Amino acid sequence: MHHHTDPAMHKAIELCWSCRDTCQSLLFTYCLQHGHNAPDHVRIMVDCIEICQASADFMTRNSPLHAAVCRACAQVCDACANSCEAFDDPEMKSCAEICRRCAESCRKMAGGMSAAA
Amino acid sequence: MHHHTDPAMHKAIELCWSCRDTCQSLLFTYCLQHGHNAPDHVRIMVDCIEICQASADFMTRNSPLHAAVCRACAQVCDACANSCEAFDDPEMKSCAEICRRCAESCRKMAGGMSAAA
Amino acid sequence: MHHHTDPAMHKAIELCWSCRDTCQSLLFTYCLQHGHNAPDHVRIMVDCIEICQASADFMTRNSPLHAAVCRACAQVCDACANSCEAFDDPEMKSCAEICRRCAESCRKMAGGMSAAA
Amino acid sequence: MHHHTDPAMHKAIELCWSCRDTCQSLLFTYCLQHGHNAPDHVRIMVDCIEICQASADFMTRNSPLHAAVCRACAQVCDACANSCEAFDDPEMKSCAEICRRCAESCRKMAGGMSAAA
Repeated sequence: MHHHTDPAMHKAIELCWSCRDTCQSLLFTYCLQHGHNAPDHVRIMVDCIEICQASADFMTRNSPLHAAVCRACAQVCDACANSCEAFDDPEMKSCAEICRRCAESCRKMAGGMSAAA
Repeated sequence: MHHHTDPAMHKAIELCWSCRDTCQSLLFTYCLQHGHNAPDHVRIMVDCIEICQASADFMTRNSPLHAAVCRACAQVCDACANSCEAFDDPEMKSCAEICRRCAESCRKMAGGMSAAA
Repeated sequence: MHHHTDPAMHKAIELCWSCRDTCQSLLFTYCLQHGHNAPDHVRIMVDCIEICQASADFMTRNSPLHAAVCRACAQVCDACANSCEAFDDPEMKSCAEICRRCAESCRKMAGGMSAAA
Repeated sequence: MHHHTDPAMHKAIELCWSCRDTCQSLLFTYCLQHGHNAPDHVRIMVDCIEICQASADFMTRNSPLHAAVCRACAQVCDACANSCEAFDDPEMKSCAEICRRCAESCRKMAGGMSAAA
């Protein structure tokens, strides 16, 4: 079988995709329609979509360089969570929670690579 | 709620992601390791990964232009299925089957747009 | 040498990247800051970014399926041009013009594939 | 005007796109055809394509988080350069050189963010 056997990485991949999907769906079918369209917010949502995808892809390819991308992803997801939490809106709070879980998971995947990082 | 309420499109999005994920995982953790690395095969797998993502994304954004992309996606998925079916290998046959289902689903999503296409 | 020898395709690739780059730069450093943030406009800009990339990538890989993607790209670029032209703003008019040129170029690249399309 | 005024970032964006384009063109129209198709080589080329794109996109959007992605990009580009340099082939050496320049440029763009990294 070609699928990943490491359960931690498998879970991390799922969280990246879940975060990407949530951010993209929310941004284009909710945020823009509800006035959550400040440039900084739209941008961090798109940043989060892009780096979550890269992080998931590096792990799916079993790339030995995934830690570097997961580290960047954790940082971007945390910033996206901050942006979403600032809204007094349960949809946004829910997105923030997913971003936080993805950030935490990516930090773990990044940590295994280099103690010096 | 921001999620899609149309069940057909929701299912189509899932099939696109499933096809993308299967192709990417298979290509980088199986095909290349098992000599399934002819240029035409590698390329159609990457083609399929890229257009499935675009198709899923257009639908996730509820884009009125999703049909044009779904139409292209159906064509690419069929070609990818052909390439995978040519191998006498159950992993590849299984990938071909997922590509076929994605192609069929994308053709349906494209169908609403133009009878002439 | 590995680079493309067909000048028409080479030019088409350049136009796709130029269109993608213009749309992305404009969207995130101008549109959102100047109130050009209606959901339909932001979405078509992102649609255009994504399909221009796919179209350029299929051609760069010399994929025999590039015509299907170029056809979708032409349609999306035209819609993006329409959205940009609706603004009374020279920056947006300039973006529309680039989208039109990319659409025309992609239509030509799509035309070689199928007389029935 | 919406284009970037910081010349260093503008140059870094161009190098990322140049590196992405070179890797993609080389991989699909040269490496696979000339037996440069070891799984690790194909994977690092695709890794490089993906992270160069993300790095260019973060900078194009003027994202305050670009440094995190540029740092990952520098690491991936160096690894890709190593992989390309291992071939006794001028095409591959030329690709390695572009990867090195991109890595160096991305390291500079990352440097402003964190002295601890």
